[in-house]
Amino acid sequence: MKTAVYPGSFDPITNGHLDVIERALKIFDKLVIAVLENGNKECLFSSKERADMIKGATKGMRVEVEPFSGLLVDYLRKKKTSLVVRGLRAVSDFDYEFQMAIANKKLEPETETIFILTDKEYFYLSSTTVKELARNKANVSGFVPKNVELALRKRFS
Amino acid sequence: MKTAVYPGSFDPITNGHLDVIERALKIFDKLVIAVLENGNKECLFSSKERADMIKGATKGMRVEVEPFSGLLVDYLRKKKTSLVVRGLRAVSDFDYEFQMAIANKKLEPETETIFILTDKEYFYLSSTTVKELARNKANVSGFVPKNVELALRKRFS
Amino acid sequence: MKTAVYPGSFDPITNGHLDVIERALKIFDKLVIAVLENGNKECLFSSKERADMIKGATKGMRVEVEPFSGLLVDYLRKKKTSLVVRGLRAVSDFDYEFQMAIANKKLEPETETIFILTDKEYFYLSSTTVKELARNKANVSGFVPKNVELALRKRFS
Amino acid sequence: MKTAVYPGSFDPITNGHLDVIERALKIFDKLVIAVLENGNKECLFSSKERADMIKGATKGMRVEVEPFSGLLVDYLRKKKTSLVVRGLRAVSDFDYEFQMAIANKKLEPETETIFILTDKEYFYLSSTTVKELARNKANVSGFVPKNVELALRKRFS
Amino acid sequence: MKTAVYPGSFDPITNGHLDVIERALKIFDKLVIAVLENGNKECLFSSKERADMIKGATKGMRVEVEPFSGLLVDYLRKKKTSLVVRGLRAVSDFDYEFQMAIANKKLEPETETIFILTDKEYFYLSSTTVKELARNKANVSGFVPKNVELALRKRFS
Amino acid sequence: MKTAVYPGSFDPITNGHLDVIERALKIFDKLVIAVLENGNKECLFSSKERADMIKGATKGMRVEVEPFSGLLVDYLRKKKTSLVVRGLRAVSDFDYEFQMAIANKKLEPETETIFILTDKEYFYLSSTTVKELARNKANVSGFVPKNVELALRKRFS
Repeated sequence: MKTAVYPGSFDPITNGHLDVIERALKIFDKLVIAVLENGNKECLFSSKERADMIKGATKGMRVEVEPFSGLLVDYLRKKKTSLVVRGLRAVSDFDYEFQMAIANKKLEPETETIFILTDKEYFYLSSTTVKELARNKANVSGFVPKNVELALRKRFS
Repeated sequence: MKTAVYPGSFDPITNGHLDVIERALKIFDKLVIAVLENGNKECLFSSKERADMIKGATKGMRVEVEPFSGLLVDYLRKKKTSLVVRGLRAVSDFDYEFQMAIANKKLEPETETIFILTDKEYFYLSSTTVKELARNKANVSGFVPKNVELALRKRFS
Repeated sequence: MKTAVYPGSFDPITNGHLDVIERALKIFDKLVIAVLENGNKECLFSSKERADMIKGATKGMRVEVEPFSGLLVDYLRKKKTSLVVRGLRAVSDFDYEFQMAIANKKLEPETETIFILTDKEYFYLSSTTVKELARNKANVSGFVPKNVELALRKRFS
Repeated sequence: MKTAVYPGSFDPITNGHLDVIERALKIFDKLVIAVLENGNKECLFSSKERADMIKGATKGMRVEVEPFSGLLVDYLRKKKTSLVVRGLRAVSDFDYEFQMAIANKKLEPETETIFILTDKEYFYLSSTTVKELARNKANVSGFVPKNVELALRKRFS
Repeated sequence: MKTAVYPGSFDPITNGHLDVIERALKIFDKLVIAVLENGNKECLFSSKERADMIKGATKGMRVEVEPFSGLLVDYLRKKKTSLVVRGLRAVSDFDYEFQMAIANKKLEPETETIFILTDKEYFYLSSTTVKELARNKANVSGFVPKNVELALRKRFS
Repeated sequence: MKTAVYPGSFDPITNGHLDVIERALKIFDKLVIAVLENGNKECLFSSKERADMIKGATKGMRVEVEPFSGLLVDYLRKKKTSLVVRGLRAVSDFDYEFQMAIANKKLEPETETIFILTDKEYFYLSSTTVKELARNKANVSGFVPKNVELALRKRFS
């Protein structure tokens, strides 16, 4: 059984993230979605809220959602896998992705980072855009799952 | 009569922005310069100060300058146009520009974003550089209009 | 009346080019589509065939289609305009576009190059891809106008 | 059993390609290495020679090597998989990769393209560099498998 | 005697910076390492701590280390040189580098900025990554000099 | 005495190349301009013609101009230096530059590649653009030295 870890801030999860999850599940038997707890960035939602939104949007899928802090390589060891999934969007911060992927590989040479191409529909979609739109009362129903849309509306009302 | 909106932070307006304005006025009959009020970034000047500096630097041109907040697509509707102008510089944050342009087009399919190539003189000029130079007492007369130069000198004295 | 020139190889015209033409016609009163005769690249179709395909695909639009050779700045002078339109796709050869735009501006400072953002549907579409697909007997009906689809099928049968 | 297709010119196979193959085999049960027969580019080695070199370099691995022409989506159907593997190097032609991946997805929505990060040792290595070095009699033993080194020496002697 | 200035935040100095210093000393007789005092970014270490770490790591080399604030062109004048050294990594913020280099050249046309290619080992290494790893108790001995490793461990204990 | 090698096709030398040469001579005592004889690209001028044009344009400068073929690392050894100069323009083929620089460093670890920032005037200038303009009878006097302008006019008459 092949398990992979999909780490991220997911603040909040978007349809682009969901697209990556669905594609990854064609390749892996199980996906652990690791919600970054103490990232550098300030988050709109707490890590618990973010994990709950992901759980709501991935019901019935072969995923496990949990908050995550510390070193990714330690977390991978704990999860007994060396496989990491990342979405390949036009708006990923590639240099940063590469830095961390290469640093992880130096700390633990077995680590493999796999980039999955998202649908062009989501190629230019990011949590940051979604929050900016929601803050300005835009209808974000085409960008995020229903439960996230409601959470955003509540947060910005 | 063709009207286009040129949105931005303009913190402060530079000769590069002025170059875009002058070029845009060869194409459009009128340009609405929309000064972002509640952007994510902290600004050196208030939106009123920024708008006043633009007014001072664009006297006699076919422009209207006003503070702007909320969704760009709503603002475009209010201004009865679907045309957005952006400067195409080497230092634009393209991915962000594309994200917002594509998000706007999803919210309102009629929106057109037009990128105007700035003079190579201004290709690597940004408000951030100008502020960093002014903070360190550099002579910024080649980078900004006269009224902005004075405002920067006053702010950092 | 504002006229702009849209120069290119159009070997063959794709739905992405058509998208740029339709958007440009929201801004300009007339568009001159200038089909490069003696580009560096070897073409699949002759300049006459390429111009005819464009004419077939733009019937009823405010466009003029003609083969073009020589210097763009001379051509602009002949057409009594200084406005050039280019499509802004992810797969444009930007550096080359910038080089030529800046060279043109040095030869004739009045030249303005305006980049129009194509729909994300066409963001990764190019004539080269289309030809590669058609050569391999793919159905390219989603990528090019009907008359071009037929011409490609004939050429590769 | 998960099978993926790894298409490419492999003219010739480098240690960077081998690195991708080994990493892909941690994820997939079997890898079909599809050697492009009729690519646009002129090749130094025939598709048979290229396939033979790959076979020599992947002995004992769970791979199948075969020449490939036509549409990738048709080939995937024949191989009963929708999974495509590509190496993610600094010197990939990303725009082209994206174009083809998106075109393939439009022709066959089930297609998934997975990008695997190569070791930084191979991040700036390409078949083109290797050929240029070998043509100039450089020692390419650190860049390609032993059998390829010998083939290059013979070809350029 | 050729002297060059190598300005930066060095928060903290990494093996990548040391690599640039060693390479620059093949070209220049002396290197002045100018530690930015009042950069925009918040630093983990004070400018004195950062300068001390550099001194500890460059013992016996032809370098001078000192804190630096104000305009780079003024500092170059004081140091009687017009030569600036920067490391060329994949993760440099190039656009920002170019902006500042071009702004400096506008303020003082004699300024020359020389980019030195770092070893591929350090191509994706930055102070930010190192701090993120150290904060999470990773072993950073392969990324920074010994004295910096100890300082990071102390700071995050 | 510090000598560096500046390799390239120089087909033909432009004002941008001259700018790099003048800047490099502020750093190095002597510059060897190595004119690529057997590059992949087809050239407009023979290597002898290209070398002669460079000699004509660099009279009185501390340069040596000679045709060059084979491996750069061998040539550096012959010239008793490990220093290579490259111009840093927006239109360099960076990936290719990096590939070769890294390959050279693998073949000969002592090799240092130094990138010199050209003036923004020349940032988007390349020999290819110049040839395309000259072929179309443009006035290229602002782009190349006088002797090259004459040679281009003669070649394309």
